[in-house]
Amino acid sequence: MSERANLVLLRHGESEWNAKNLFTGWVDVDINDKGAAEAARGGQLLAEQGLLPDVVHTSVLLRAIHTANIALAACGRHWIETKRSWRLNERHYGALQGKDKAATLAEFGEEQFMTWRRSYDTPPPQIEVDDEFSQFDDPRYAALPTEARPRTECLADVVVRMIPYWYDAIVPDLRAGRTVLVAAHGNSLRALVKHLDGMSDEAVVGLNIPTGIPLLYELDADMRPLTPGGRYLDPEAARASIEAVKNQGKQKK
Amino acid sequence: MSERANLVLLRHGESEWNAKNLFTGWVDVDINDKGAAEAARGGQLLAEQGLLPDVVHTSVLLRAIHTANIALAACGRHWIETKRSWRLNERHYGALQGKDKAATLAEFGEEQFMTWRRSYDTPPPQIEVDDEFSQFDDPRYAALPTEARPRTECLADVVVRMIPYWYDAIVPDLRAGRTVLVAAHGNSLRALVKHLDGMSDEAVVGLNIPTGIPLLYELDADMRPLTPGGRYLDPEAARASIEAVKNQGKQKK
Repeated sequence: MSERANLVLLRHGESEWNAKNLFTGWVDVDINDKGAAEAARGGQLLAEQGLLPDVVHTSVLLRAIHTANIALAACGRHWIETKRSWRLNERHYGALQGKDKAATLAEFGEEQFMTWRRSYDTPPPQIEVDDEFSQFDDPRYAALPTEARPRTECLADVVVRMIPYWYDAIVPDLRAGRTVLVAAHGNSLRALVKHLDGMSDEAVVGLNIPTGIPLLYELDADMRPLTPGGRYLDPEAARASIEAVKNQGKQKK
Repeated sequence: MSERANLVLLRHGESEWNAKNLFTGWVDVDINDKGAAEAARGGQLLAEQGLLPDVVHTSVLLRAIHTANIALAACGRHWIETKRSWRLNERHYGALQGKDKAATLAEFGEEQFMTWRRSYDTPPPQIEVDDEFSQFDDPRYAALPTEARPRTECLADVVVRMIPYWYDAIVPDLRAGRTVLVAAHGNSLRALVKHLDGMSDEAVVGLNIPTGIPLLYELDADMRPLTPGGRYLDPEAARASIEAVKNQGKQKK
C-alpha cells in the first residue's frame, strides 16, 4: 500500500455531436478529428511529465474509450489494464438526447434551458424507452435491471451512481500504488471532482473541466487531494479554455 | 455454464514493419492504413454474421490492440471487457528483431533463414539484453522476473507460454457462455490453433492464418472444435490469402 497516489482525469475532446450542437448524453457518438488531436495532445502531456498510467478506467461510451486509446498510444501505454463502467458515463440527458441545443433553447426559453443544463438537482424530462435516442435497450446495459437504467439524470444523480465506482474500482487501484487514468465526460468528472474537493452542490454548478487536458490529483493516504483542485498538465491552456466557456455564457445572455 | 461456446480469432493486419520487410517479433510497431482497413473489415464481418464479442483478449503489442479497437468499434462492441497478456504476443524473434528480411536471407542463406522462420523448435539466436530492439526492459514486462522474459523464441516456446493463458483466462470466459475475441499475431494464433485442432508439430509448420479475417471456432463443452480448422467469416478471401502466401514461398525458391 502506497502513501501517495496519482490520479489523472481526462475529459474527451470534441465529438461529432458537440460540433453539431446536439444534446448527447448516453448517445454513443465518436470524437471527431479535433477531438482525436486533443486526445493525442493529452497523451503527449502525460509522456512529457512522466505521468504514465498503470491502469485506465473509462465509461462505456466510444468518445471516452477512443480518447483513452489515442492518449495511451501517444504515451506508449496502450498495453495497460483497461476497465470500463457505465458509472463513468456522461449524464443521461433524458428527453433532450438527440435534440438541437439552439432549437431547445428557442422552444423552452432560457430559464428552463439553463435549469436543465446547469442546475444540480433538476433533471430534464424522462426519455421514452422506445425513443431512438433512449439507449434503454442497448446491449451494454443488458446486465443492469431495468429499474437501474436511467431515463434522465441531473448532476446529483450522476454523483450518486458514480461514487460507488470510485470507492469500489478506482480507489483500490490507487491504494495499490498505481497511477490511474480516468477517461470520461464533463459531468462524470465534475461529480468526481466535487467529491475529491468537497465542493458544495452550489459550487459544482460553476465548475468547468476543459477537454483534452489531463488534470492531476495527487492524493494522500486517505484519498484526499494534496492540492485542492488538482493541477492541469497544461495550466495555460486550461485557464484559456475555462475563460472561453465563461465568456460564451456571457455572450448568450 | 454453456454447452457451446464461440471463439473468434483475429490476426492483425499489415504493420509498418511488415510493409518495410523487417523482422518484428516483440518490437511494438503499429499497423499502417492498410492494416487499419483490414481491422475495420474484420469488425464488419463480425457485425454481419452476428458474432458480437462479449470480451476481448489481446497481446500487449500495439498492432493487436489497435486492430481490436478498430474491429470492435466497427461492430459497436468497443465497450466490452478488455484483457491483455504478453502470453498472446507474437513470437520473440531474438537477434533478428529489427533486421531486414532480405539482408538476413542474403547474410545467412536460405536454409538457415527458413529454419529460423519456419522450424517448430529452432529459435533464432538470443538478442542482447541491451540491444535497441530487445524489449527486455520495457515497462510492460517489468512485473515478470527476468528469467521469464524471452530473448528469443521458436514456435514450440510460444505454445508453452501461450497455453497457460488459454486455460486460465480464455476458457473461463468461454465457459461463462461469452463470445470471446482473441486479437493477436501469426504465431500466437498458430499456437492456439495447433492446440485446438490437435495438430502435430510437423503439421503446424505449414499452417498460415490470414490477416484481418475473423476465424470462428465453435467449441463443445470440453472446449473441442465442432468443426476442425474452424470457419473463416470470409472463406473466399481466406482461401485467396492462403494461396498467395503459398505462391510467395514458391517464388522465393
